Amino acid sequence: MELEFLGTGAGSPSKSRNVSAVALKLLDEIKKIWLFDVGEGTQHQILNTTIRPRKIDKIFITHMHGDHIFGLPGFLSSRSFQGGEKMGPLTIYGPKGISDFVNISLKVSQTKLSYELNFVELEEEGLLLENDRFKVYAYKLDHRIECWGYRIEEKDYPGELQVEKLREAKAPSGPIYGRLKAGEVVTLEDGRTIDGKDFIGKAKKGRIVTILGDTRQTPNLKLLAKDADVLVHESTFGKGEGKLARNYHHSTCVQAATLAKEVGVKQLLLTHISARYVGKMVKVLEKEAKKVFPNTKVVKDFDTFNIPFPERKDDEQ
Amino acid sequence: MELEFLGTGAGSPSKSRNVSAVALKLLDEIKKIWLFDVGEGTQHQILNTTIRPRKIDKIFITHMHGDHIFGLPGFLSSRSFQGGEKMGPLTIYGPKGISDFVNISLKVSQTKLSYELNFVELEEEGLLLENDRFKVYAYKLDHRIECWGYRIEEKDYPGELQVEKLREAKAPSGPIYGRLKAGEVVTLEDGRTIDGKDFIGKAKKGRIVTILGDTRQTPNLKLLAKDADVLVHESTFGKGEGKLARNYHHSTCVQAATLAKEVGVKQLLLTHISARYVGKMVKVLEKEAKKVFPNTKVVKDFDTFNIPFPERKDDEQ
Repeated sequence: MELEFLGTGAGSPSKSRNVSAVALKLLDEIKKIWLFDVGEGTQHQILNTTIRPRKIDKIFITHMHGDHIFGLPGFLSSRSFQGGEKMGPLTIYGPKGISDFVNISLKVSQTKLSYELNFVELEEEGLLLENDRFKVYAYKLDHRIECWGYRIEEKDYPGELQVEKLREAKAPSGPIYGRLKAGEVVTLEDGRTIDGKDFIGKAKKGRIVTILGDTRQTPNLKLLAKDADVLVHESTFGKGEGKLARNYHHSTCVQAATLAKEVGVKQLLLTHISARYVGKMVKVLEKEAKKVFPNTKVVKDFDTFNIPFPERKDDEQ
Repeated sequence: MELEFLGTGAGSPSKSRNVSAVALKLLDEIKKIWLFDVGEGTQHQILNTTIRPRKIDKIFITHMHGDHIFGLPGFLSSRSFQGGEKMGPLTIYGPKGISDFVNISLKVSQTKLSYELNFVELEEEGLLLENDRFKVYAYKLDHRIECWGYRIEEKDYPGELQVEKLREAKAPSGPIYGRLKAGEVVTLEDGRTIDGKDFIGKAKKGRIVTILGDTRQTPNLKLLAKDADVLVHESTFGKGEGKLARNYHHSTCVQAATLAKEVGVKQLLLTHISARYVGKMVKVLEKEAKKVFPNTKVVKDFDTFNIPFPERKDDEQ
């Protein structure tokens, strides 16, 4: 998995930072891409990446502020104009009202999409979706308007079948390998029984990525961020601006770092950077956060991060 | 007056052309700026110009296709965020539905503007607005959906008072200059009467700028473009693609040039260039049009054109 930031600014675009959007690339066998927020100009940013809009099959919206949603109608329309193979469906997850906004925008512009568009408007906190490879959880944050954070849990990869060890045990190769890999107990032709579980290597833990919308500090953040391999957290304000952050329903870099430290996050990526922070001041934001949580980075537009598999203690595997 | 193109592409943004927007800068004493269409990313383009959003007090929308309106909510919101002196009101002229689109976008995003926003939805063709300096006319074009073209007529500048000639006539300077300039007949202290009209130089003709939305060729184009000093015309297709242009409710470069020639246009600016036209092919578009109407240019994003005063025959002045 890889994260690519398409917009890392707050409120309005600036010359150096577009408004919010981040792509989560599910590499490996799935090759789909999920977008989190679609500020105005996200489709323009995508033109400068290797992301192909047809690969984006899910969009998660944190909240309805313009700098997080105004790029949605244009992105959806342009995705429709792309030729070639049949365009797959796309599902948008977001707060109540997101389907109205998109549908009205498409209707007034008389845009007929070439693909199926589905909406899931969030109501209850907890497990939002589950498929073969992922579970996605959504919990409410504390912002000026309804706002959600997302926790993407990759499922564990099952261990590999240890073929060499099976050969040593003189188990015949063939269809029984599939049953052994599934963990079954198999009776061989010579009467011996062997247990698949004894021939499967260690499972590889899946990764956890937490992507938050704009928020004050609130207990749900701990639920969302616990043990995350990567936490994407807003940092609209700097150290010493806690009061401002609270008044404007945002967070400081130090609050984000404190959360990361408290709940065992591996890497903290700070985004939603105010236009007031430029040049050296961005380094100061990062430095202040690093004092609390060393593995912190203030991201820029187009920054890309590979998400490594977590190292776990043996007894957990 | 000056035209600055902020987006010159068709349908979707490309790396080299953004979707539609053009700014008409009313220099001289007014110093206001009028925008024609606001495709997604127009506010981003403005960041790379000297245009200050607060100076934009009128927006004219040609039609409701997404590549002409999806930048409107973001532009309006960001204009609101700008600090400093009190922000003046802004009026949007456009087809029926434009106020719904904007109001719903602002409502769902809970955006409260810091300035007064007014709408004028077009119904009848003809004179749309008149002030001290300008008349703006709107006529319907022939596109897939309701679409309008705008003709901006600058009023003539009255001639200057010929102070030297007054001195020669030994007319005393002072408050009577104002009355003479207004064309009054004034009785001097020495009993002579002098006619202001004899001491006013030639009037300067105002300029005519015609900015069209997407369109097939249709008789209203002639009404809109007659004697225009500058005609901004779409050129989605090239020579020999007349049938395609007709089917998709667009024009070819040669159709635009033919119109310009027929109705006495001074300069033709071709925009709304398809992403199919890049590099040398753009030059070909321009060359084909120039064969019919030599003073033609295919515009690029950020191209800026000063609009010169027309030279008129003496008897017209």
